[in-house]
Amino acid sequence: MAKPKKTPRPKAETPKGFTDYFGSDVTQRKEMLDGIAAVYHRYGFDALESSAVETVEALGKFLPDVDRPNEGVFAWQEADDNDKGDWLALRYDLTAPLARVYAQHRNDLPTLYRRYAMGPVWRNEKPGPGRFRQFYQCDADTVGTASMAADAEICAMLSDTLEEVGIPRGDYLVRINNRKVLNGVLEAIGPREDQITHDNVLRTIDKFDKVGEAGVRELLTKGRLDNSGAFIDGVGLSEDQAAPVLAFLTSKAADAAGTIANLRAAVGDSKVGQEGIAELEQIGELLTAQGYGADRIVIDPSVVRGLGYYTGPVFEAELTFEILDEKGRKRQFGSVAGGGRYDDLVARFTGQKVPAVGISIGVDRLLAALRAKGRVSREGQGPVIVTVMDRERMADYQAMVSELRSAGIRAEVYLGNPKNFGNQLKYADKRGSPVAVIQGGDELDKGVIMLKDLILGAQIAENATLEEWKERPSQFEVARGDLVARTREIIESHS
Amino acid sequence: MAKPKKTPRPKAETPKGFTDYFGSDVTQRKEMLDGIAAVYHRYGFDALESSAVETVEALGKFLPDVDRPNEGVFAWQEADDNDKGDWLALRYDLTAPLARVYAQHRNDLPTLYRRYAMGPVWRNEKPGPGRFRQFYQCDADTVGTASMAADAEICAMLSDTLEEVGIPRGDYLVRINNRKVLNGVLEAIGPREDQITHDNVLRTIDKFDKVGEAGVRELLTKGRLDNSGAFIDGVGLSEDQAAPVLAFLTSKAADAAGTIANLRAAVGDSKVGQEGIAELEQIGELLTAQGYGADRIVIDPSVVRGLGYYTGPVFEAELTFEILDEKGRKRQFGSVAGGGRYDDLVARFTGQKVPAVGISIGVDRLLAALRAKGRVSREGQGPVIVTVMDRERMADYQAMVSELRSAGIRAEVYLGNPKNFGNQLKYADKRGSPVAVIQGGDELDKGVIMLKDLILGAQIAENATLEEWKERPSQFEVARGDLVARTREIIESHS
Repeated sequence: MAKPKKTPRPKAETPKGFTDYFGSDVTQRKEMLDGIAAVYHRYGFDALESSAVETVEALGKFLPDVDRPNEGVFAWQEADDNDKGDWLALRYDLTAPLARVYAQHRNDLPTLYRRYAMGPVWRNEKPGPGRFRQFYQCDADTVGTASMAADAEICAMLSDTLEEVGIPRGDYLVRINNRKVLNGVLEAIGPREDQITHDNVLRTIDKFDKVGEAGVRELLTKGRLDNSGAFIDGVGLSEDQAAPVLAFLTSKAADAAGTIANLRAAVGDSKVGQEGIAELEQIGELLTAQGYGADRIVIDPSVVRGLGYYTGPVFEAELTFEILDEKGRKRQFGSVAGGGRYDDLVARFTGQKVPAVGISIGVDRLLAALRAKGRVSREGQGPVIVTVMDRERMADYQAMVSELRSAGIRAEVYLGNPKNFGNQLKYADKRGSPVAVIQGGDELDKGVIMLKDLILGAQIAENATLEEWKERPSQFEVARGDLVARTREIIESHS
Repeated sequence: MAKPKKTPRPKAETPKGFTDYFGSDVTQRKEMLDGIAAVYHRYGFDALESSAVETVEALGKFLPDVDRPNEGVFAWQEADDNDKGDWLALRYDLTAPLARVYAQHRNDLPTLYRRYAMGPVWRNEKPGPGRFRQFYQCDADTVGTASMAADAEICAMLSDTLEEVGIPRGDYLVRINNRKVLNGVLEAIGPREDQITHDNVLRTIDKFDKVGEAGVRELLTKGRLDNSGAFIDGVGLSEDQAAPVLAFLTSKAADAAGTIANLRAAVGDSKVGQEGIAELEQIGELLTAQGYGADRIVIDPSVVRGLGYYTGPVFEAELTFEILDEKGRKRQFGSVAGGGRYDDLVARFTGQKVPAVGISIGVDRLLAALRAKGRVSREGQGPVIVTVMDRERMADYQAMVSELRSAGIRAEVYLGNPKNFGNQLKYADKRGSPVAVIQGGDELDKGVIMLKDLILGAQIAENATLEEWKERPSQFEVARGDLVARTREIIESHS
């Protein structure tokens, strides 16, 4: 008989690009999501949790020429009897599922469907440092209205949300642009250019932050020598054609009215451009009337990122403070949320255009920002550890943790091998426990317990003089009946 | 040139076996999960959120003989350069990922790792009515101790958790058994039988609830005619061999001591059986000392379900009240949580046994139970709707919702086409709004607003007499400055 092949041990590893979140990583994110949901809810949005799995068809990432439609998404084919099942995939954002949900349930939903959603999304991309293939998004969308009041509301809500979770006014800016204005600028270049030129113009606009006005001018026309000495080909526009693009990029003025006037000049008599400017004006007026000034929300023509499926106004929330990157260099934190108006997504399913506008907050980036600024609640406190001095008296120790828990104090009895007392204290230390409770035979006879203030103990060990050490003992005896009251005292003395 | 093929519209459908959750479906579950997490946290467990995606290898569902290892899980192969990437899969529970996490991070984790986790899991099974392929679990586990105090604690915590989320004492029972006792019974059958006989015995034990003692006796021995007249083959044991199994099944006595004595007789001198009984005794003593009596937690030899990878004590929480099923028949609600001790899961990765014990709550079933008993918070209230009487005055209406929101009142301005006022009220109705706010030109001139109490209005419309109608107007004029105060009054009058 052949020897059975020995199965090698499986590797204990997260798949590439995935990660695990421990303790306060989880609870801090939850706290932030709760804060965001509270604002969204107060604004009248209802919760929606769609399934993590969608048909590839519904997601719209179907590439008919490839065997497996897994470009950008994690996809697999359902196995049915003749192995010709549907292709399914993990959602890559929360907007595509919303379009599917709205199309599927539109007869049961209110005429305006206002929903918020939060949860993980998955991207089948090459993972990089700090770039994960599973991450959280938190979205709010209003489906079913073309009113600019909905767009203004989304911007106001985004501003309120950032302040709610701990980004103070002045540390962020919601910037608004309009895809239609950009289209107007492209029209103003002159006779409609082919798509490739438009794409090249858009790509060049995106470099404005890096190369400035003069650089963009060169790149739009004859080309440019970059810092390394390499020559970058130009788009090939004439100076006249480049003019509206440059006017657009430099249209930001001291106030909204000034910016609007500049934009109006940039788009010339392009109808779509004028329409976009009128929309920006409306949004601006509504926000101003509600007291959202330029310290919170501004019209900013340089917002071009992620214009993909947007058809009108686009928004971006940027954190304006500087942080130190991994190499210790100062840099702007940058964007933490983006959104806009997309009027074509539902039409994919139903053939009818349904106007919609929404925002998506990059939860993990926002959380990283809050951490960088020290604005998340401090490390969650570990449990009080009731140590085990006599393993026959486990029930007594359990009674102590029960009392503590009933009083709302996080507590546990040491459940490992109690033989080595040092290991129990090491465990308490590893858990970040504030207090260890000790009751051996002597204490039992006297009706007392020892409480060890572990936070004070650590402070004393680190920097106390002998006098301080004597004056502030970190370990003391209290009556058994005072367990809860005295433990609470210690915990509160450190909060 | 060939005509481009027209792409048919995608179907707007959730994949088979998946579903979407709307509004209070989402918030009620969230509230329940928050309640469970609070108890787990108070007991000293830390949060863990592992990735939804694992390698198939780590999940341990690898079937070497099939092309695609997707039996029971949703799996796909990573595409790398030569198309020979890892097989990845969605997690099917939260325990297998815990074993992987513990094995991967064991050097950084405390010697006892106590974690809770909650989130969706996925099963690639044929969907059926009410059976979904994505559902929530909520687990707590202690890894790294063989102490029965950990098992007792899990049972106590499960009891506390059920009460915390709204299942009162008396409406549930945590039942404990021990896999080792069952193994002892199998030993007591006589000379070690082959695996198939053991499996058949286990399957027969599982039918005890249905066919009773006499039925099991027949099934274990010579076979049995079932109700339909069909003959079911017996396992083929002798009466003597069947005796310990029947003694085991009927060992439940009026109190724990009685049950233990009966079990002791059933396992005879099987060492593993006696060990299991000693463990049950220890757990029982610890729980009794903490005041968890037979009204909450009992030793019950009929708990055999899901003994799969368990190696010692097993637990099950059952709801004991009756509900009406879809056909109006009374039935026990049944199990909402299960768990036990599993000492071999981490060893798959490391080769070293790591004792562990945990519990998993079936969140969706528990929520269904709470709903069936009317014990979830009532339908979340819709937002106050500020109607739009004059579309030029949108900023005024936005100012009203801002005031309401600042006062913590959920509110929104109607963002659809305001032309038809009836549609605005229909929308408010569909959203479950408590109040509609109305201000046309007349009201504006007088410095007032109209408040429409929509809940009262609905009640009056349904059953009021003419007198009542006159006495309790559901719509009245208030000063503009009283918007917040009077709106709050109306909302509070209905809560």
